[in-house]
Amino acid sequence: MNISALLTSAGINIAISVSLLSLYSILRKQPSNVSVYFGKKLASMCDKRNDPFSLERFVPSPSWILKAWETTEAELLELGGLDAVVFIRIVVFSIRIFCIAAVICIFLVLPVNYYGKDMIHKKISSESLEVFTIANVKEGSKWLWAHCLALYIISCSACFLLYFEYKSITKMRLAYITRSILNPSHFTVLVRAVPCSPEQSYSDSVREYFMNYYASSYLSHQMVYRSGTVQKLMNDAEKMCRVFKHVSSENSNRNSLPCHFCGVASNPFMILSNETESEKGNVRFDVLDLAAEKEYATAFVFFKTRYDTIVASEVLQSANPMLWVTEMAPEPRDVYWSNLCIPYKQLWIRKIATLLAAIVFMFVFLIPVTFVQGLTQLDQLSHALPFLRGLFKKKYVTQVVTGYLPSVVLILFLYAVPPTMMLFSTIEGAVSHSGRKKSTCIKVLYFTIWNVFFVNVLSGSIIGQLSVFSSVKDIPKQLAEAVPIQATFFMTYVLTSGWASLSVEIMQPFILLCNILKKFIFQIKEDPPDGTLSFPYHTEVPRVLLFGLIGFVCSILAPLILPLLLIYFLLAYLVYRNQIMNVYITNYESGGQYWPIAHKSTIFALVLTQIIALGVFGIKRSSVASGFIIPLIIGTLLFNAYCSQRFSPTFDKLAAQDFMEMDRRDQQDGRMEEIYEQLRSAYSQFRLSQDLCKAAPAHINHNENTCKDANTNSNEDQESIQDSEAALRPGTEIGS
Amino acid sequence: MNISALLTSAGINIAISVSLLSLYSILRKQPSNVSVYFGKKLASMCDKRNDPFSLERFVPSPSWILKAWETTEAELLELGGLDAVVFIRIVVFSIRIFCIAAVICIFLVLPVNYYGKDMIHKKISSESLEVFTIANVKEGSKWLWAHCLALYIISCSACFLLYFEYKSITKMRLAYITRSILNPSHFTVLVRAVPCSPEQSYSDSVREYFMNYYASSYLSHQMVYRSGTVQKLMNDAEKMCRVFKHVSSENSNRNSLPCHFCGVASNPFMILSNETESEKGNVRFDVLDLAAEKEYATAFVFFKTRYDTIVASEVLQSANPMLWVTEMAPEPRDVYWSNLCIPYKQLWIRKIATLLAAIVFMFVFLIPVTFVQGLTQLDQLSHALPFLRGLFKKKYVTQVVTGYLPSVVLILFLYAVPPTMMLFSTIEGAVSHSGRKKSTCIKVLYFTIWNVFFVNVLSGSIIGQLSVFSSVKDIPKQLAEAVPIQATFFMTYVLTSGWASLSVEIMQPFILLCNILKKFIFQIKEDPPDGTLSFPYHTEVPRVLLFGLIGFVCSILAPLILPLLLIYFLLAYLVYRNQIMNVYITNYESGGQYWPIAHKSTIFALVLTQIIALGVFGIKRSSVASGFIIPLIIGTLLFNAYCSQRFSPTFDKLAAQDFMEMDRRDQQDGRMEEIYEQLRSAYSQFRLSQDLCKAAPAHINHNENTCKDANTNSNEDQESIQDSEAALRPGTEIGS
Repeated sequence: MNISALLTSAGINIAISVSLLSLYSILRKQPSNVSVYFGKKLASMCDKRNDPFSLERFVPSPSWILKAWETTEAELLELGGLDAVVFIRIVVFSIRIFCIAAVICIFLVLPVNYYGKDMIHKKISSESLEVFTIANVKEGSKWLWAHCLALYIISCSACFLLYFEYKSITKMRLAYITRSILNPSHFTVLVRAVPCSPEQSYSDSVREYFMNYYASSYLSHQMVYRSGTVQKLMNDAEKMCRVFKHVSSENSNRNSLPCHFCGVASNPFMILSNETESEKGNVRFDVLDLAAEKEYATAFVFFKTRYDTIVASEVLQSANPMLWVTEMAPEPRDVYWSNLCIPYKQLWIRKIATLLAAIVFMFVFLIPVTFVQGLTQLDQLSHALPFLRGLFKKKYVTQVVTGYLPSVVLILFLYAVPPTMMLFSTIEGAVSHSGRKKSTCIKVLYFTIWNVFFVNVLSGSIIGQLSVFSSVKDIPKQLAEAVPIQATFFMTYVLTSGWASLSVEIMQPFILLCNILKKFIFQIKEDPPDGTLSFPYHTEVPRVLLFGLIGFVCSILAPLILPLLLIYFLLAYLVYRNQIMNVYITNYESGGQYWPIAHKSTIFALVLTQIIALGVFGIKRSSVASGFIIPLIIGTLLFNAYCSQRFSPTFDKLAAQDFMEMDRRDQQDGRMEEIYEQLRSAYSQFRLSQDLCKAAPAHINHNENTCKDANTNSNEDQESIQDSEAALRPGTEIGS
Repeated sequence: MNISALLTSAGINIAISVSLLSLYSILRKQPSNVSVYFGKKLASMCDKRNDPFSLERFVPSPSWILKAWETTEAELLELGGLDAVVFIRIVVFSIRIFCIAAVICIFLVLPVNYYGKDMIHKKISSESLEVFTIANVKEGSKWLWAHCLALYIISCSACFLLYFEYKSITKMRLAYITRSILNPSHFTVLVRAVPCSPEQSYSDSVREYFMNYYASSYLSHQMVYRSGTVQKLMNDAEKMCRVFKHVSSENSNRNSLPCHFCGVASNPFMILSNETESEKGNVRFDVLDLAAEKEYATAFVFFKTRYDTIVASEVLQSANPMLWVTEMAPEPRDVYWSNLCIPYKQLWIRKIATLLAAIVFMFVFLIPVTFVQGLTQLDQLSHALPFLRGLFKKKYVTQVVTGYLPSVVLILFLYAVPPTMMLFSTIEGAVSHSGRKKSTCIKVLYFTIWNVFFVNVLSGSIIGQLSVFSSVKDIPKQLAEAVPIQATFFMTYVLTSGWASLSVEIMQPFILLCNILKKFIFQIKEDPPDGTLSFPYHTEVPRVLLFGLIGFVCSILAPLILPLLLIYFLLAYLVYRNQIMNVYITNYESGGQYWPIAHKSTIFALVLTQIIALGVFGIKRSSVASGFIIPLIIGTLLFNAYCSQRFSPTFDKLAAQDFMEMDRRDQQDGRMEEIYEQLRSAYSQFRLSQDLCKAAPAHINHNENTCKDANTNSNEDQESIQDSEAALRPGTEIGS
């Protein structure tokens, strides 16, 4: 590929991006699309959709960009939670480090590469891209110190930035924990593997155990019940009610206040007829009856203080570590109820099984990727498929095929990955939505790095022979040979997957389509507002980190990629901020748990870059530069060891000191009773709290959260249905 | 090597072993050697050494064997502690599994190997050993199912035995913890990284912190002080006193009662003149003065109940995980005082540095091992050193050189390893003697498995080319080719290193020599009894596990090794039991922490065996057998995952339930005050408690342990001197 092919590709993508963004700025002004582009606002406040028709609605405007730019971090924290801030921080970190890298590499490394060999340069537009890579520097060149220096500067500034980011995010996490005063999960321990006893029920066992050993701190407990056919009946009833409601009521504005009052899914029930209500009462009665006899060996145990809670959760309870297993409970709205019924004994085997399944999936995926990669080497393809040879003679076809098609095919294949990994994480037995998403994020990250980066690098260079793993010692050398060659592919990957994915992200074409179908084909005017999305960290974090990895690895080898990446990250910054503010709802949070993943991934990228540089300098016979790289690798690894020593325990455990301070403050302010009151109904597995909302309006202030929480549980089944829908429109996960 | 060479080697070793054991049975009857062979009894009770001279003293007798055989496990537990029992259990496990393996392999596998090829067999004595290995089975033979079946039986019975051993040792560990009612370490938390404050001393910071956050459970605390020149002065004073005592008192029987009363090293002080006493008093005053101003950021904090202690030790104290780091304190006699002064911030870098140093040491060690291995291939050696060719023509020289010399040279080199690894573990910063020994044990185990097993296997087969690591995929195949060839070496290794090391172990030649020198050359009649040994788990556990590994790996490939190994393990059983009963003193215990090491090592050996079998079946073109091995590998790994889930947390943490029960029992019995009284003086860094012993005889019952404990600390410097002596006489470590 030469410069003009790159420019063609860039041109196509810029055109697509700009037109899509303009389209977005028009579409978002249409009242009918409010539910698509302002799902968050819709869920949290009354919308004013009675705008008069105006021409302004059909003129593209950059107002959303300004808004996204101007929002402060504090606002973002309030709107999207800590995870959103951490995600934006990952993007900001990438912008900062690649600004530094771009300046250094373009002014120092790029000229060295370009004039690396004594040759007559062609016109710049028809210059091959290889001229700009390190492949153009001749062996034993003295100018390799420039690359070495650039790598030192990039590595050091990356470590420097990483350290301060980690420090500030740790602080934010602590603030996040201490800020949430009325968080019921701080008082709750999830107890699993309650031993089975023939004399008493699980509930009695739990009470006896904690009354015996934690008499001074034990408050109460709540069992997890089997949700079977009755739950299904209730769901069916709800669906029927909803249909009934759509037919009977045309008034759409009634939606605004109650959704504030009692969560999202509760609204349809407010206007139920008396018959349905009494029927529901019966059903609920059955649930309670059934529940009493069908307990799982899992319970939520409430304690009197936060300190007691972390003590009970962190101490090994029984001499048999497979009994009385305790951990901090997730937040009520974060609980993944259907996984709580998994017997604890199964967890280890489930973890191993899903790990194996994920690995197998990663390797089976090789097949389409290897095929896609073949497309960048057209001569090989036309050897294999001679009937295409005529087609490839046309220049623009070649350019489109080499510059655009491989990435598109790869992206389409990649869309199947997040739902699959989400399925694995569900089977694995995560007890919280956020834990499941985090686990999926890690799986997708491994998958992406392996299948997009390594397989492309390795199979692209030695296509046809997959005996890559036979030699360990030569890996730096092999990578050093392969990466500069594949730089072209990565550039087009950034152009297509990167830029286009952002446009897709902001356009939300799948939901837009659904919305249009609903509104204009099926003539359903009122959206039930429960289809709002939660931020798909499990796809977006790996994507951003993958681009970071590509950026680091290519920085000194093929610096031309850096401007493209910088544009991507700047665009990502705007787009994701906009999405967090307007589209995604924060139903549950992991509390900044994505940062350690980003940190480790960045360290991996740095070390990989350094190892590849080692190989490159080896090939170029510059032993001095090679020698200088080794202390850099050791230094980076030591830095990582220090960070994981200094910061990461704060992300695994909660500090006793902070919790004790919080307890004291609450005790002094006399808030404890209020908290206990709230705890009683915080974790409700079945939808029983709607009555509370209606029956006891005096409790509204206390129970507001509770009701909302309780309602989110009910949406779980719905979510699992929507999860499978998400497989069709991947990249986002529909939360409750 | 053929059968007769093997028999020569076996003959030499049997003769040596038998004569050494006979010599031992004579030597142990000599009154002058009591301190060598009955160090334990000498330290714990008055010895009756006024035996009349009799002929019986010079006749070998098997009485010690009978005694060693008859001792029950309960007695052993009392005499040697849990670690000794666990060690004997490792030996017993090996005996059991290799009995099974020997029966199966000799009656099923050996005939298959021997008649594996259509060939005319020579006279059995001149038959090459290769005829008995799997190398003699022809390719594609149907009889390979016998090997596969044998491996299945061995693996399954090994897992079966491992499971029940783990279960029973876990039970024993729990009993060990709950049994030791007056253990001060159960009430003590070691706090490190106390933050530095300009306003107050470390001691005040500690008091303030724990009074603030653990007001209800905090009892008191004790700082760790800088031991500098004053401590040295005190040591010098003590040495002088000891010399003085040896000159002035000839009465040896006075030793008997006080050593029961106030520990070992305190005795010399009991008869000090008044001048020395008062001088010592001054010194002590200085120590206290100095100590107050020279505190380290480390403290022992005492709590009111055991439960509070584990809570404080397991909870993350501060939001900065590098401050207020808590862990369960080791037992007083187990504390490694000089490492307590290491700043906590250094620990991570020390760990990394020692890890790297240990790895470098492992690889540097390759050089002598590669040379030694050359000796088994005489033709190569005589090519390299032509002047030796004449020598090698004599048959017995060849047999001695190939059968005996390599192992002897290797053993001599190996003797330098444990002290080096002990040094690494000391630098690493272990806070307890047992922790240091356990860490050394792991290092030595890795070292031994790598340098004795792998390097011999790999360099032996592909001598001269060390490019072994280049190919990952071929490792099973390479191992499968190499191991049967090296079986000969392993047989001689078992014969020499195994059998002879046991003889050396029981003879204790180094100490015997020292004793003889002292008694007959320097005419020192009375031994100061503080030179008694603690069991060298860090050398003996890896040795036994290495033989286990060799046994598993060779079992189906070269079954002839199994009888030799069985003899080794049976002999080891008797010898180690004897040594535990008579020689070694149990000053400190890890509480069965060696079992998880043994378990993991055995699992590793099993999986390695299976992988090698996979390679062998691959070479022999038996795809069915290969196919059957893969589920076996998966099964073994799953078994390991289950065990580490089910049992290993009990070895890392202490169960809250058990501790709470113990607290309750003590509170009901009113023993708590007594325990608190004892805690006050349990951890004393300097020798201050001798006064207590003298000044307050009414406290004897309470303080007996305390004084003993306090005295052991004083022996630390002495121990470090003796450690360097141990480098000369490795295989054992001189405890305090």
